[in-house]
Order: sequence, then structure tokens, then C-alpha cells
Amino acid sequence: MVVKVHGSPYASAPRRVLACLIEKDIEFEIVPVDLFKGEHKNPEFLNLQPFGVVPVVQDGDYTLYESRAIIRYYAEKYKSQGNDLLGKTVEERGLVEQWLEVEGQNYHPPIYNLVAQLVFFPKMGIPVDQKIIEESEEKLGKVLDVYEERLSKSKYLAGDFFSLADLTHLPFTHYLVTDVGKEFMIRDRKHVSAWWDDIANRPSWKKVLQL
Amino acid sequence: MVVKVHGSPYASAPRRVLACLIEKDIEFEIVPVDLFKGEHKNPEFLNLQPFGVVPVVQDGDYTLYESRAIIRYYAEKYKSQGNDLLGKTVEERGLVEQWLEVEGQNYHPPIYNLVAQLVFFPKMGIPVDQKIIEESEEKLGKVLDVYEERLSKSKYLAGDFFSLADLTHLPFTHYLVTDVGKEFMIRDRKHVSAWWDDIANRPSWKKVLQL
Repeated sequence: MVVKVHGSPYASAPRRVLACLIEKDIEFEIVPVDLFKGEHKNPEFLNLQPFGVVPVVQDGDYTLYESRAIIRYYAEKYKSQGNDLLGKTVEERGLVEQWLEVEGQNYHPPIYNLVAQLVFFPKMGIPVDQKIIEESEEKLGKVLDVYEERLSKSKYLAGDFFSLADLTHLPFTHYLVTDVGKEFMIRDRKHVSAWWDDIANRPSWKKVLQL
Repeated sequence: MVVKVHGSPYASAPRRVLACLIEKDIEFEIVPVDLFKGEHKNPEFLNLQPFGVVPVVQDGDYTLYESRAIIRYYAEKYKSQGNDLLGKTVEERGLVEQWLEVEGQNYHPPIYNLVAQLVFFPKMGIPVDQKIIEESEEKLGKVLDVYEERLSKSKYLAGDFFSLADLTHLPFTHYLVTDVGKEFMIRDRKHVSAWWDDIANRPSWKKVLQL
């Protein structure tokens, strides 16, 4: 069954799902949702995803949304197909979950604010809030200091294996080092920098950026 | 092995973990961390949890933090002990993950703001921001409208079974209907109200509130 991914291949949360599907060798097709035209607020889309955000996957009769839930679902359903992304033991998976949550709760809010303020808002003509930018950069810096310490002892976040915990960071960190223009936040931290070079050069992520 | 839970039994995130351990019939002891004395910023605590937030669990040599990761770990490790909290199939677990993510990404930010502004800040002498309160109440209301629709078709969030998806909502919703004084947000929505009565009356949650 080909998995239908509703969303734009240029949007961050769909990219998280696409990277996972490629890592797991799962066939998919993209059903474009044009965010600039507001197609994510159309009744048909809201019927699939009541919060009006991308992505949503349809896999036969099964519908699922929230990118971090979708990647967990496919990593578990196809555990032994493609690259394992959950760790070998329940303890390893626990650490994968820990760092997935760190990304969702600690890393995502400030990096999202930076991307919104410095990339989305200018395109949409919304005025930028310098205080939010400064506070978000400070918060993200503190989170990255913890990552630097962690990655000085462990090749990847959850241990010595690439996992969903790393993959989930790809889309927004890509924005940070490109459009946002704050690559120094990664490069000033030796171990974070090496980790980023490693995960951003995975064939799956390169393929996502070509879609 | 008795699980050590570092945190206060009065704090929301540790309560999420305690409710799960009780549902799973897992023995635990609480290692108190006094947030008002700033014990979560002590070097020994930061060594366990580098972001300086509760809870952390220690289970023999294994250490894990982030409450939503900890509950997934114990629900999976002791799948067949106590109450099943993950669903029976990988598709059911996918929906549990979806609603866990909805809670973490959509429900938590506005409800946290309401609790912070209306409960924590007044106690700490921090001035309250009326605009944040109004915006958060509006956002939470919209999220609860989606819950109302979902719960009109399904007894619990992920399906017809109680799961981590419901359990994760207990600590902050408890604040909302008690200290925050906004019980009407639950009671004005018939199906959300019935769901809340159901989950808040589980023996596990009643036990957590007595700790």
C-alpha cells in the first residue's frame, strides 16, 4: 500500500515524516496542500485533520496526524525494514522517547519562534518582534549547550545509534542554518556541529530536500 | 526494583508519571525535590536532569527524564502488567501517539500559560499578563472544541480504551478545574465533561492526589 502524505514537501513537519518513510524504505506519494492558498483550512482537509495543520497520512483506511506520532508509528510497524530508528531494547527506546520529547518540548518552541519571526512573518507582511527573537535565541542556546555536553559523550542523542530522536531535529535545524542565518549556533558547538554534519548528510535527508 | 521518582508529588509533570506507575502496579518511592527552594537547579540534580526540571526516574542503573517519555517507557516495558495503556495493535498505539502529541503540542502550551499566569505567578509575585491569559483561553477553547467532536464519537481520545493519551491530560486539567477556576471550559462541553469525570475518577488519579 502506497502511503499518501498530505502536505507540502517544503514544509517542516511533512519533511519529518518524509525523512522517516525514506529511512524505512516505505513507498509514498505526496498529496500537495498549498498552505499559502489556505488549503489546510478547507472543509475536506479539516475532515482529515481537525486542527488544520499538515501533515496527515492515509494508509489504506488508516488516517494519522501529528508528525512525531506518524514517525513513531512507521518506525514501529516496520521495525525490521529499512533502518531501525527506535533502538534495540526497551531501554534504548526509552532514551529515544526522552530525546524526542526534549525536541518537542524544549528545542522546538524557541527554534519555531526564530523561524516564524525571521522567515515566515517577513514573507507574510507580519511585523517582527525583536524581543521574541532575542529570548528565543537565548533559550535555544541553552538547549544546545545541553546537547553539546550530551554529544561529547554519545555519537547520537539517544546513544551510539541514529534514531527518531536525531531525525526529528532535521527540518527546523535545516531552517536555522539556512534561511534563518544562524548557522553559528550549530558551528560554535564542536560536537553539535559534527552531529549536524552527520545527520544532515544522510541520503534520506538529501532526498527530502530534492523533493 | 523500586522506581525512584525525583520530584514533588504536588507538581504536574511528576503526577503524570505517578499516575502511570499506579496504573501499571509498579512500586515506587518519591525522592522529594523542593522547587520553591530551587533544588532542581542544584548541581546533583542537574547531573541527573541537565535542563533542571522534574521528574527524573531512576530504575536501578537506568535514568530517564521527560514525563511523557517515562510513561511510554513503563507502559511498554510492563505491557501485560496492570492496565494496558498503549492499545492492542500498532494502529491503536499510533492513535495513542497521535493524541499524546496533540496534548504536548496543542493542549499543553495554552493550559500551561493559564496555570502559570493564574496560579504560579501570583504566588511568586510575578506580574500577570492579561493578553496572554485571554489568548491562551481562546486557544485552549478551540482545542477543546476538537476534543468535544472527537469524544462525541469515541469514549476516550485514542478509541474505546483508556490510554496514555487520556492519562497525560490529568495533571494540568486538574489545575484548570480547581486552582485556575475555569471549570466551565470543561463543563460547557458535554462530551469533554463526561470524559473528564471518567478519567479524573480513576483510582490511580485519586491516589496521586492523596500523595
